[in-house]
Amino acid sequence: MKKVAAGIDIGGTNTVFGLVDRDGDVLVKAAIKMEDYPDLDEYIKTLYFTVEKMLKSVSESEQVELTGVGIGAPNANYYRGTIEYAKNLKWPDIVIPLRERMNKFYPNIPVIVTNDANAATIGEMVYGAAKGMKDFMMVTLGTGVGSGFVANGKMIYGYDSFAGELGHTIVKPQGRKCNCGREGCLETYASATGIVRTIYKMMADEIDESKLRKVPFEKMEAKMITEAALMGDTLAIKAFEYTGEMLGLAIANAVAITSPEAVFLFGGLAKAGKYIFEPTKRSMEHNLLFTFQNRVKLLPSDLGEDAAILGASALIWDELGETA
Amino acid sequence: MKKVAAGIDIGGTNTVFGLVDRDGDVLVKAAIKMEDYPDLDEYIKTLYFTVEKMLKSVSESEQVELTGVGIGAPNANYYRGTIEYAKNLKWPDIVIPLRERMNKFYPNIPVIVTNDANAATIGEMVYGAAKGMKDFMMVTLGTGVGSGFVANGKMIYGYDSFAGELGHTIVKPQGRKCNCGREGCLETYASATGIVRTIYKMMADEIDESKLRKVPFEKMEAKMITEAALMGDTLAIKAFEYTGEMLGLAIANAVAITSPEAVFLFGGLAKAGKYIFEPTKRSMEHNLLFTFQNRVKLLPSDLGEDAAILGASALIWDELGETA
Repeated sequence: MKKVAAGIDIGGTNTVFGLVDRDGDVLVKAAIKMEDYPDLDEYIKTLYFTVEKMLKSVSESEQVELTGVGIGAPNANYYRGTIEYAKNLKWPDIVIPLRERMNKFYPNIPVIVTNDANAATIGEMVYGAAKGMKDFMMVTLGTGVGSGFVANGKMIYGYDSFAGELGHTIVKPQGRKCNCGREGCLETYASATGIVRTIYKMMADEIDESKLRKVPFEKMEAKMITEAALMGDTLAIKAFEYTGEMLGLAIANAVAITSPEAVFLFGGLAKAGKYIFEPTKRSMEHNLLFTFQNRVKLLPSDLGEDAAILGASALIWDELGETA
Repeated sequence: MKKVAAGIDIGGTNTVFGLVDRDGDVLVKAAIKMEDYPDLDEYIKTLYFTVEKMLKSVSESEQVELTGVGIGAPNANYYRGTIEYAKNLKWPDIVIPLRERMNKFYPNIPVIVTNDANAATIGEMVYGAAKGMKDFMMVTLGTGVGSGFVANGKMIYGYDSFAGELGHTIVKPQGRKCNCGREGCLETYASATGIVRTIYKMMADEIDESKLRKVPFEKMEAKMITEAALMGDTLAIKAFEYTGEMLGLAIANAVAITSPEAVFLFGGLAKAGKYIFEPTKRSMEHNLLFTFQNRVKLLPSDLGEDAAILGASALIWDELGETA
């Protein structure tokens, strides 16, 4: 009987599902649209039914045993197993006791809820390039900047389960205004929205011609800047250089605190390859204390397109202490 | 038979020793002057003989069993049990395999070597105000700024044993020149030498009269500024405010990463009481992400004058997993 873990990733637009074995092979996938489930009870029942449907479909070809259900979600609290006031979901004003609700369907196996960045971090440790590492950090460069830290082989959740807010460390006092109400957070520079702000700074500061100059602010997307950089657009490349400069500084400060073996970059902006990795590495080394210079690897995540499902499912193998 | 741990704290001027029971009672103390032991072999033998002498003196009144030898030292590597290129000691150019050497005298009990800030952190966890906490951080405000982080109940040593360099996180890009060769490190603001630099900045920026204005730069000491502040000297108080401002920012960034239950301040500058705690707390709260605001305690260390001995001895109880 093959053991599988269910991975569920809850996002603002979709919830994606998969059954994953200990080697990280995704046996079956599914997805539902959030707009189809305005009612919370209905939504939670659908999480259960979808997992059951996947189990049934897989069991047609081989016998499987479900070992647990791992869930990645915005504003998740690992300790309480809740989703709390998640503005990107349909239920922004409540605390959803998701673990408790799911445990009613699955009373005898673990249900684990954590945020997406922590799930990605554990996914990297269980299946990916961080396999065997005891001390590393992951930075997720999405709409915001998330992060996860592993020390002594264990995820750092902290006292409140809110650890890993690298995106809200201040890299530039009195810097850019952040949605969180403060100024100079890394997220205002190194996220998808951050690099959009940066390309406009570059338009102002630099004189390079660029087809991006035709795009109004509200239409600009990070992936347009990535595509432009990959095509050799010098303004876009400068925007990535500035992004890497700020990101490298924040990483260097985090390295001084946790001394990781490696730092992984994950998410949209990481797809720009050398355009983001090279300036980030340069700035990281420049800002690192000599003790750490040329010792800390800066690496891309190894999880690929199913990262969200893999990360969520990995929570279970990590919890069960099952190593490959 | 009472179990005791030996605590040895190696400093630039003295090495201090104590035998400590699990409750943190120091049964006997000793000290030697570093200048009396230029020869390393002689010095290491003296460490052993001093512990033996203490054991003998204690055993006159009660039977004790030595459970281990904990050593706090500059530039110590926990994993390797070494002191590496310690500029403040007589042997600045070599790696001293201290654990290995001490294990020859004590083959059947643990010998643990770590840096002073980590020892203080574990001391706070084993005997002090962090007892029972699983996630906290300690900041040591001495000649430099050290720190120690505990997550999931375990010290974060990191991949290289160099974790906890909060003093070398950059709080002000292009800020003050640091001995490490970079600019803007917390240590240039929040250490004993940092506040000396700050009092001169205050002399330049402010017009408050102060008896500190009579003191030449090279004669100024942090404790003179502390004493002046405690006497109501407004220039000294402003220097502490600026110190707290920078320290609070660095702490807020570290809190975003590790989400501790409490932050402890330890060492010389912490003795200024409210003059350092109040501005640090203000700046910490101001710079904290809303998630963490009004949730993280800022506390003085509880270890008292024997902190160095206590910290070193605590390494043993922590290693043995013996909780009080």
